[in-house]
Amino acid sequence: MNSMEVTMWMLNSTALSMSSSRSYERLHEIEKDLAIVIPVKTKRLRLLEGVLCGIPHACLPIILSNSKNDPIDRFRMEQSMVDTFCRYAKKKYIIAHQRSPEIARMFREGGYPHLLDGDGLVRNGKAEGMLAGIALANMAGKKYVGFIDSDNYFPGAVFEYVRIFSAGLSQGKTPYSMVRIQWHSKPKIVDTELFFAKWGRVSRITNQFLNLFLSHFTGYETEVLRTGNAGEHALSMPLALALDYSTGFSVETYHFVSLMEKFGGALPAPFPEIMKSGVEIFQMESRNPHLHEVTKGGDHINEMIEYSLSVLWHPTICPASLKKDIATELQQLKIIRKNEEPVKLRQYPVLAGIDFEAAARTIDWPLYGNFVPA
Amino acid sequence: MNSMEVTMWMLNSTALSMSSSRSYERLHEIEKDLAIVIPVKTKRLRLLEGVLCGIPHACLPIILSNSKNDPIDRFRMEQSMVDTFCRYAKKKYIIAHQRSPEIARMFREGGYPHLLDGDGLVRNGKAEGMLAGIALANMAGKKYVGFIDSDNYFPGAVFEYVRIFSAGLSQGKTPYSMVRIQWHSKPKIVDTELFFAKWGRVSRITNQFLNLFLSHFTGYETEVLRTGNAGEHALSMPLALALDYSTGFSVETYHFVSLMEKFGGALPAPFPEIMKSGVEIFQMESRNPHLHEVTKGGDHINEMIEYSLSVLWHPTICPASLKKDIATELQQLKIIRKNEEPVKLRQYPVLAGIDFEAAARTIDWPLYGNFVPA
Repeated sequence: MNSMEVTMWMLNSTALSMSSSRSYERLHEIEKDLAIVIPVKTKRLRLLEGVLCGIPHACLPIILSNSKNDPIDRFRMEQSMVDTFCRYAKKKYIIAHQRSPEIARMFREGGYPHLLDGDGLVRNGKAEGMLAGIALANMAGKKYVGFIDSDNYFPGAVFEYVRIFSAGLSQGKTPYSMVRIQWHSKPKIVDTELFFAKWGRVSRITNQFLNLFLSHFTGYETEVLRTGNAGEHALSMPLALALDYSTGFSVETYHFVSLMEKFGGALPAPFPEIMKSGVEIFQMESRNPHLHEVTKGGDHINEMIEYSLSVLWHPTICPASLKKDIATELQQLKIIRKNEEPVKLRQYPVLAGIDFEAAARTIDWPLYGNFVPA
Repeated sequence: MNSMEVTMWMLNSTALSMSSSRSYERLHEIEKDLAIVIPVKTKRLRLLEGVLCGIPHACLPIILSNSKNDPIDRFRMEQSMVDTFCRYAKKKYIIAHQRSPEIARMFREGGYPHLLDGDGLVRNGKAEGMLAGIALANMAGKKYVGFIDSDNYFPGAVFEYVRIFSAGLSQGKTPYSMVRIQWHSKPKIVDTELFFAKWGRVSRITNQFLNLFLSHFTGYETEVLRTGNAGEHALSMPLALALDYSTGFSVETYHFVSLMEKFGGALPAPFPEIMKSGVEIFQMESRNPHLHEVTKGGDHINEMIEYSLSVLWHPTICPASLKKDIATELQQLKIIRKNEEPVKLRQYPVLAGIDFEAAARTIDWPLYGNFVPA
């Protein structure tokens, strides 16, 4: 933990009401260099349009869609809406289908085949879409990349998330920083009324074990880590390219494991310059509740818990006592059986390994454009 | 209608994503001159705090509270929260109890006794709090005044409302302009799901009759008027001081009647310079849904309809045919009986009649501060 600074930040209207015009300008500078990746999968167009509206004008939206094109071509509908919106708003944008041959070619030519499946296309999955988004953001010359879910009912909440990204990133003292958002609350409908829940079950469990993990290295019990599953997060590009990634719902939790492995000092450092410079993590709380579309038919809570904890359980730096605690928890929740190991998830090596020049040659830059599925 | 320009504006991300830093600066300039009046009556502190967070930093919040101070001193709790927030955010603010002797003295010394009741205090009612807010805003040297309800769950929506105010006011070509917000939608809980309703029953009826009213003067049937009950609205100070006001839920609807009477050309003009210059009304649609605390135990829908229509029915400029239509509607809704007249609401003359210098002498300016109830 010696080289990593984990800062707990409680945002209090910082992002919404910066006090001087100088600060606004600083945020604007960051936002000009910030790409916002929006992974989409067959969500209502109205929601996606609202999310687009909430993104500050200076940012580059990158829509990574894995929506169906059969029986109705949902992707074409998304393209058409995004195109109309961005034309009207005079904005550049990128929209790509995750399974398009162009995106696949980019990774193949860039010498990063890990993301491709037997069909030679980028694998299905939100994490894989996020990685494609990071690569596109880097190729578009952006210095920062943030992630926003496409199913948010409130453009104003999206706007705040991006402002929190820029407010956090603007405070980074090293080139390696990350902003993770803790939702103010998540409204639930309980008996025809709204209840503003603070913690979900998955987050509570993930954070508990991540804090135990941190405590093991520092020798101090801590609750500092509150954003183990932060879907809304942003990274400086040098950090985004230097992390390993895990697939599925574990991608956000695994950030911490990858940070500890690479820059925590417990293992030999693959990037000693980053370890020396230090990595900053800004955990910031939003003021807006997070109201998103509820997926019908179960939340896969148990799968989420298993994925989040499995990426902690498998690494060699996970202390034996924590391994035992995690296994016990998963057994008690009847997620794994006695003596069964948690699922081992696919992992992707650092994106810095991509030959971006070769990848860029496959794409018609600087024409921002559309890539349709294969 | 010759001198009044009613402009229908459909905002499309204008406020959230202005495209150039120049525009941001213009909005900032407006916001420095903008007071936001927040009428409060015994609402949850958390909601009021969220609303405060959503107001851009440059604006002056004026909290006009009519909360109880018995058995629990809710007003003191509000004061304490607002004070802590504004200290931390380094903001000036005004918080006043509507029934405080200081506010009453201000109107008495200013020669505007209309607002005072038998106890010599400002009357109860949201409209009366709004008028006190306009007077305070003017005395604080503000050029614009806007109104935001205190029960909004989303600070991001509040932020957008104020940005819409400044985006609209910045486009005013005369000193007399008004911005009225049409909500994007109002989420309702229907069978444990959210339904995003566009129009409420009160608005639909109010707008229908206001449009008939306009149509009578122009000779063209119109649907241009869509904000008859816009609680979220802002006015340039010269216009705010030149309008008459009606009490209760009718205050927003009556704006249109007062505008027609004073500057519409149908009656002799009390302020010919305003009539000559023209009044601009910007109706702008928000992008955020409007999610507010639902008051339990009935919405007084019928009372709202009666109040909104009664201020149209009584004026001498209301054409006989419209009077008849309104009466028929109110009878069909069983709000009034046959041959019964709609309620006649208390009205207040123009605030320009206040001797602001005399009023200001009663207050410890420029110390922004607290006024507690009598």
